[in-house]
Amino acid sequence: VNDLPAPLRTLERFIREQIPLARAIDVRAAAHDGDMLALDAPLAPNVNDKGCAFGGSLVSVMTLAGWSLVELALQARGIDCDVYVGNSEVRYLVPVWSDFRAEARLDAGADWDRFFATLAERGKARAEVSCIVHEQGSATVAATLRARFVAKCATTPP
Amino acid sequence: VNDLPAPLRTLERFIREQIPLARAIDVRAAAHDGDMLALDAPLAPNVNDKGCAFGGSLVSVMTLAGWSLVELALQARGIDCDVYVGNSEVRYLVPVWSDFRAEARLDAGADWDRFFATLAERGKARAEVSCIVHEQGSATVAATLRARFVAKCATTPP
Repeated sequence: VNDLPAPLRTLERFIREQIPLARAIDVRAAAHDGDMLALDAPLAPNVNDKGCAFGGSLVSVMTLAGWSLVELALQARGIDCDVYVGNSEVRYLVPVWSDFRAEARLDAGADWDRFFATLAERGKARAEVSCIVHEQGSATVAATLRARFVAKCATTPP
Repeated sequence: VNDLPAPLRTLERFIREQIPLARAIDVRAAAHDGDMLALDAPLAPNVNDKGCAFGGSLVSVMTLAGWSLVELALQARGIDCDVYVGNSEVRYLVPVWSDFRAEARLDAGADWDRFFATLAERGKARAEVSCIVHEQGSATVAATLRARFVAKCATTPP
């Protein structure tokens, strides 16, 4: 039962093929609706010495979710750019004791129209993304990340 | 030729046994002198789709270096506490195209005396740690992390 949208399924395959750590984390695409992108990861390969999720795993999955959100927004408009993570701020709020999900959204105040207008004008644009992590089935936010992603196009998109 | 200090070698083994992602990253202890702790990682298992180091790997190694610095400071004083990462701020400055090293130090302005005085008084203390990543053999700082680590003791240390 894999009813993911095709671009998300393709992105999941790309990430797992190209980034060995994403395979080690066993990250899986979970949902995407343009405004939100979710990735899942099991606890077992991401556990630390205390039996909860390793901070580096949480950051990795949140960073991949944010990167994927921007990447799919570009792909949906047929734009081929490289997307890099710039700065990020992480807060670890409560330990994660089970399989978890990371959800990425554009920051409040940011919007895709402005992002793509800047990209068309300059061949480069920044997107501020907010991510949260929660245990599967729980509404409690366990960790947050705010990150700046930069898209750079070899040629200015149309 | 493994001439690491014994506590650092033991810590390396502990991290690789207890944290599967540390094994996937293939992190290795490199140096420790009380004020600075260094961990190494090869590029191959940490590469991204562009052929440089994945941001999540850089954060993971920097976070492990900071955690290890605090952990070994506690061990050197015979104190048994849990150490957690709290908040962190990451800057990705330039891509990392080869094997890399993360170095962790106490923040300028912080000192171990105050940290251990607070820990003795309250059974809990915060250490602000700065980490940098650079390619092996290069002095160029490729990424930085500032992180707060919290040590919590089950019993107040002597």
